[in-house]
Amino acid sequence: MQVFLNGQFVPEDQAYVSVFDRGFLYGDALFETLRVYGGRPFRWRQHLERLQRGADYLRLRLPFAPDALRGFADELLRRNAVSETVLRLTLTRGVGPRGYSPRRADRPFLVMELWPAPPVEAEAADGWRVIVSSIRVPADDPLAAFKTANKLPQVLARAEADAQGADEALLLNHAGNVTEATASNLFWIQQGTVLTPPLSSGVLPGVTRALVLELCAALGIPCAEADVKAEGLKAAEGAFLSRSTSEIVEVVALDGVAIKRSGVVPRLRRAYRDVVRFETTG
Amino acid sequence: MQVFLNGQFVPEDQAYVSVFDRGFLYGDALFETLRVYGGRPFRWRQHLERLQRGADYLRLRLPFAPDALRGFADELLRRNAVSETVLRLTLTRGVGPRGYSPRRADRPFLVMELWPAPPVEAEAADGWRVIVSSIRVPADDPLAAFKTANKLPQVLARAEADAQGADEALLLNHAGNVTEATASNLFWIQQGTVLTPPLSSGVLPGVTRALVLELCAALGIPCAEADVKAEGLKAAEGAFLSRSTSEIVEVVALDGVAIKRSGVVPRLRRAYRDVVRFETTG
Repeated sequence: MQVFLNGQFVPEDQAYVSVFDRGFLYGDALFETLRVYGGRPFRWRQHLERLQRGADYLRLRLPFAPDALRGFADELLRRNAVSETVLRLTLTRGVGPRGYSPRRADRPFLVMELWPAPPVEAEAADGWRVIVSSIRVPADDPLAAFKTANKLPQVLARAEADAQGADEALLLNHAGNVTEATASNLFWIQQGTVLTPPLSSGVLPGVTRALVLELCAALGIPCAEADVKAEGLKAAEGAFLSRSTSEIVEVVALDGVAIKRSGVVPRLRRAYRDVVRFETTG
Repeated sequence: MQVFLNGQFVPEDQAYVSVFDRGFLYGDALFETLRVYGGRPFRWRQHLERLQRGADYLRLRLPFAPDALRGFADELLRRNAVSETVLRLTLTRGVGPRGYSPRRADRPFLVMELWPAPPVEAEAADGWRVIVSSIRVPADDPLAAFKTANKLPQVLARAEADAQGADEALLLNHAGNVTEATASNLFWIQQGTVLTPPLSSGVLPGVTRALVLELCAALGIPCAEADVKAEGLKAAEGAFLSRSTSEIVEVVALDGVAIKRSGVVPRLRRAYRDVVRFETTG
């Protein structure tokens, strides 16, 4: 496989970054993960916008203009001759003097590589068994708005899910409200309304989360933001998780308690596929 | 300069890590930073013990036994022919499948490299101007006990210090208590007692912090753990920061307010140097 390494295409066994890169040293980096359908990165603009917002917040410079970057992404897909795949883009602050200060670290580094796409149909058919992890996240963390390379809480929460034979783990904030899963946003259905935690609870503004809210509006399904405790979720009329790589996946159990299955989920999934088809063909 | 790269010594311009390494992708890594005096890493055992505790917590395997690692560290110092330096050791979970789950990522990767030592004498003479950063950290974060590669809050806080012409930034927890600075532990003096925030406030158990507490006991200076607000610090009889690379540095101003200078600080600094001399010679 070829990897895009800050302006060059190199074979994956030569895709290396300096051990002095601040992404490696401190997690001083952002990333985006996009699903590619038919050779086209889905919702590229929305992912790039989030990356740019994060870069602005961290005062990190994108070393390539968005259009040039898209050209490189297309070239990466062509060189690897894959069309159904996952594209990860990592932006680091690059090499600088030792210490946390970002001063004089002004050589940002950008990597794009491809990963196998998850089996969306199988995931959709089976749904996910989910646990509530013991990891707590702050509600008012400004970094929660961006996809940073500081993911140890998520790694630990996923390890808890693995240990319990579950597929995903929910993270609570310090108020005990559910925020999101380690790599997906949460939705649930209550009295016919699709609900999701507000961003202010410490939630990543997921590109797929935004699309789900758009789809609800388009389909005339009431939707709103609300806080919820784990117990509230167990009593819901249905629950699902959203993320770019897996689209929409039903939560079939929470901490071993079966969750009702709602007809809203397959409706949203069909509408999601329609948007994918519309935006990635023609 | 030569770098130790997971079992090999390589020139720094060949010291690269795979872009698929989880340290780079997710900050799924730990590190230690040690001061080397006269060619000997100071308090090696204590740093290695903290690394091992972190590795146990993250279920990360050290790929080399501590003794072998010490041999490699000594060899690294010999090859680079430096004796007054800073040694950083980074342990990552290595390469694995995509996603936060650490499952099947069982090839840990260990890097050691040297960095210039800060000018300890000059820092001690000038002291540090410190600010209270806007960044909040959770009080009960289990990861606070380890030196993880998730340092974006510290990077942001240091950037705030830079913007205000300050040398370091203090982080408050959500209760509004001061925890530590971005890369150093905090002490202050109140009625002759040396005080420092308790680990339970969300404080890294610094190797130098522990040594300062030992020195207070040895010198008969009363010391204790206590919580403090920023306002309390401004009224202290003196304040200082501790870290391996800079030893003990007086806080001369906090948010622009001059902090009293206490005779306790030079006493502790002299005692610190005595321990350094004792442990790194003969």
